[in-house]
Amino acid sequence: MQFTAKEINLLLNGTLEGNPDVKVSQLAKIEEAQEGALSFLANPKYEAFLYTTNASVVIVNEDLIIDKPISSTLIKVKDAYSSFSILLERYNSLKLNKKGIEEPSFIHPDATIGKDVYIGAFAYIAAGAQIGDNTKIYPQCYIGDDVKIGNDCSIQAGAKIYHDCIIGNKVTIHASTVIGSDGFGFAPQQDGSYVKVNQIGNVVIEDNVEIGANTCIDRATMGSTIIRKGVKLDNLIQIAHNAEIGKNTVIASQTGISGSAKIGESNIIGGQVGVVGHVSLAKGTQIQAKSGINKSIEEENKKWGGAPAQTYQSYMRSQVIIQRLPEMERKIEELQKLIKRMQENLPK
Amino acid sequence: MQFTAKEINLLLNGTLEGNPDVKVSQLAKIEEAQEGALSFLANPKYEAFLYTTNASVVIVNEDLIIDKPISSTLIKVKDAYSSFSILLERYNSLKLNKKGIEEPSFIHPDATIGKDVYIGAFAYIAAGAQIGDNTKIYPQCYIGDDVKIGNDCSIQAGAKIYHDCIIGNKVTIHASTVIGSDGFGFAPQQDGSYVKVNQIGNVVIEDNVEIGANTCIDRATMGSTIIRKGVKLDNLIQIAHNAEIGKNTVIASQTGISGSAKIGESNIIGGQVGVVGHVSLAKGTQIQAKSGINKSIEEENKKWGGAPAQTYQSYMRSQVIIQRLPEMERKIEELQKLIKRMQENLPK
Amino acid sequence: MQFTAKEINLLLNGTLEGNPDVKVSQLAKIEEAQEGALSFLANPKYEAFLYTTNASVVIVNEDLIIDKPISSTLIKVKDAYSSFSILLERYNSLKLNKKGIEEPSFIHPDATIGKDVYIGAFAYIAAGAQIGDNTKIYPQCYIGDDVKIGNDCSIQAGAKIYHDCIIGNKVTIHASTVIGSDGFGFAPQQDGSYVKVNQIGNVVIEDNVEIGANTCIDRATMGSTIIRKGVKLDNLIQIAHNAEIGKNTVIASQTGISGSAKIGESNIIGGQVGVVGHVSLAKGTQIQAKSGINKSIEEENKKWGGAPAQTYQSYMRSQVIIQRLPEMERKIEELQKLIKRMQENLPK
Repeated sequence: MQFTAKEINLLLNGTLEGNPDVKVSQLAKIEEAQEGALSFLANPKYEAFLYTTNASVVIVNEDLIIDKPISSTLIKVKDAYSSFSILLERYNSLKLNKKGIEEPSFIHPDATIGKDVYIGAFAYIAAGAQIGDNTKIYPQCYIGDDVKIGNDCSIQAGAKIYHDCIIGNKVTIHASTVIGSDGFGFAPQQDGSYVKVNQIGNVVIEDNVEIGANTCIDRATMGSTIIRKGVKLDNLIQIAHNAEIGKNTVIASQTGISGSAKIGESNIIGGQVGVVGHVSLAKGTQIQAKSGINKSIEEENKKWGGAPAQTYQSYMRSQVIIQRLPEMERKIEELQKLIKRMQENLPK
Repeated sequence: MQFTAKEINLLLNGTLEGNPDVKVSQLAKIEEAQEGALSFLANPKYEAFLYTTNASVVIVNEDLIIDKPISSTLIKVKDAYSSFSILLERYNSLKLNKKGIEEPSFIHPDATIGKDVYIGAFAYIAAGAQIGDNTKIYPQCYIGDDVKIGNDCSIQAGAKIYHDCIIGNKVTIHASTVIGSDGFGFAPQQDGSYVKVNQIGNVVIEDNVEIGANTCIDRATMGSTIIRKGVKLDNLIQIAHNAEIGKNTVIASQTGISGSAKIGESNIIGGQVGVVGHVSLAKGTQIQAKSGINKSIEEENKKWGGAPAQTYQSYMRSQVIIQRLPEMERKIEELQKLIKRMQENLPK
Repeated sequence: MQFTAKEINLLLNGTLEGNPDVKVSQLAKIEEAQEGALSFLANPKYEAFLYTTNASVVIVNEDLIIDKPISSTLIKVKDAYSSFSILLERYNSLKLNKKGIEEPSFIHPDATIGKDVYIGAFAYIAAGAQIGDNTKIYPQCYIGDDVKIGNDCSIQAGAKIYHDCIIGNKVTIHASTVIGSDGFGFAPQQDGSYVKVNQIGNVVIEDNVEIGANTCIDRATMGSTIIRKGVKLDNLIQIAHNAEIGKNTVIASQTGISGSAKIGESNIIGGQVGVVGHVSLAKGTQIQAKSGINKSIEEENKKWGGAPAQTYQSYMRSQVIIQRLPEMERKIEELQKLIKRMQENLPK
């Protein structure tokens, strides 16, 4: 896609200085921009780049005082950062605006497909599945029996959703993520073998959730594994059966939430964290990367760290003391010597 | 699927009390059940729910004494829990009973396909591959050249099995899991670059194994990476080249087993554990979540924890003492002061 | 594939002893080899196996002194190990030598396809994508809009590459790996919800890179996430947006590199390591498995361990002292008792 400076200025309702016909075809940071790129300057810290950049067009704040010659075409607006965000949105919605049903795809006659959808080639929509309006199902996705997907969702290439799962509106699921695979439940037998516990529940994902790539959310044994409204999950995360992730909680990559754990609202959980099964985390809990949570957290809005996790302050203190351990050992030895000497010198 | 209370009672060979024509279409926990649901009461702890549940049908033990009015239809059986398990099995086998070959799929003329299989659309069966009787290959699976898969297996949507791997009978592999990708072997060169070591072995998976979603099992450099009979692997697990996982061992999510490690029989390994290469773990070893195993474990049936791992008792003791570190530091300071004072007061 | 001992000897330019017409169809270790297998003996430690092996053909060093009868056909060469490596290469290139375009596949009319490619069934090549010469795109891969892939690449079954990503020459990407999924960027709002930050950058992968299965490399917010020449990444790794992995760096399974981290050249990073965002690691840095890196490392060629990481020596010392903690506690108690007794005995 290519636009002239003039077209962009019209969209942003700004003031243009320089060549209105110069063309841009990509967006770039001001310090990295090449010819043909559109950039912006919002932070005065980067002002020096304005005089050296190769960007063809730069969006700037209208109150910026320019005191050297500039080769780029300028578009002056009230708030350069917001204007650039508008362009980003616009760019992405044009770039990613796929529509229609590509062939070959597999849509079971008993599936229900909404208006203005995109269904990529090699996507599979099983019997009883429902796909909402404006939803995009990218190539090679699997939408199992009786799955319900709401409106305005984006299910990226190769995501797999097992039967009976329910996805809300405005949900994004990235490539190769698996929703609704069997929970990990096996009953030990006398002879050392295990018998599978059938997992007949499902996964419910509420509105405005985004889930990264290669993440796994297992279906409940019975009932539902639930991802509440507004949750954001990164890549390679494990959510086990019957877990519940509270509204607006954010979880970073490679974290694992065990079975039946209830993560509270507005939690912020770092990467590579492990949470054991059947615990509850209070609203506003924050967990440092790599921590291990092995009990419920009842007080709200606290920060935790370590494995097993302590309050953040106590964790930081422990870390400091652990580094002082060699010194502690030396002190104890000195005390032992000192006392020995004192004892020898004591009047008998 | 919909069943009447009468039909279910016939199947369970119980005694029916209430409306035999009431219909149920789902299974639910007694405390969450809505109209149209079938539930059960096995644990006396939950008896109170029997009088308040909205479940249309409840399976109960025949010796249960009922002392208040109940709105649900009851089915009385010897063991309510076992009866419910039978229904779960039946429900799942009906629900998941797929058969036939969907189009378009890719089945190489040199592949051998057993009886009563399911091959979903967009599944790929390469030259020389063998698929056993009653096995289900879900949509978008990749079965590479000369792969052998036994009877009664379920290979879920999008699983990828590289050439020459061998899968036994009654094996379940969940969505997007990768079997037989190249082991991670590279020979360092003088100039700092690496040259790939060709990985020409395979993966052998024995009978009754279940493998979760997005898990990776690498092929051996030469010989086989082996998953023994009855092993259960969770999601997002890494099994490196030439590793061997012993019979009936269970491994939780996000654990990594390095190259040539030999995990013993009947081990229980928690989530996010790491095991280094070339070690052996004795039969019955148990490893706490997040542990790091950096040496072989020779004594059977022991529990380990921590990174690097210690025996579980010693790990727990260390954890407790680490929490007492600030107190230890304070004690040392006190001793130092005390001794200083003593020295000053000593007769010169 | 089947070869006679004579054919193999011709290829290796060796000296044949025994039956030149015996046929082999697989490669195996000398201690595991069965009839029909080709094996080698390079390490004198394994010489005993030469007299008991069932291998039909064994490659040996020409200076090997043989003092007992042998049933296998021998091929004597200067360097048995190198000769065997040549055969491995040859075997793999024959075994994996796929060519042509299988149907059904989806190749957009605006895509550009090189010479001698393999495109498997159910692969999707989007508009504007470019596939170089001799590159193999296995079944069920997704190559998004405007993706460029160089020559001699191997993109294994089901790998997903989002729009605009750039892949160099001789790159291997294993099954179900995701390249170019959105970076994890969300702006917190007053009401506790998050608004997505559009991720309009891409991923650039340079020449000679190999990436394992089920790994994720997120696209940059703006600019590029970069994987430099010669990098080797294992399975289930997370590389976040705008990270850069230096030339010839090797990273083991399940490690996570956070956003905008810059990993230096020739680093060796173990499994399950976490690196926080925005740090830089010097050239030649080595990180022990399971470590957590929370600050930049400026000194080159150092080894680190622990979470948070210390220099390796200091980490090892801490580990030793932690094991001595119970003893330290006992010593402190003894000192306390001793001093108490001394105080009681002091002249008042």
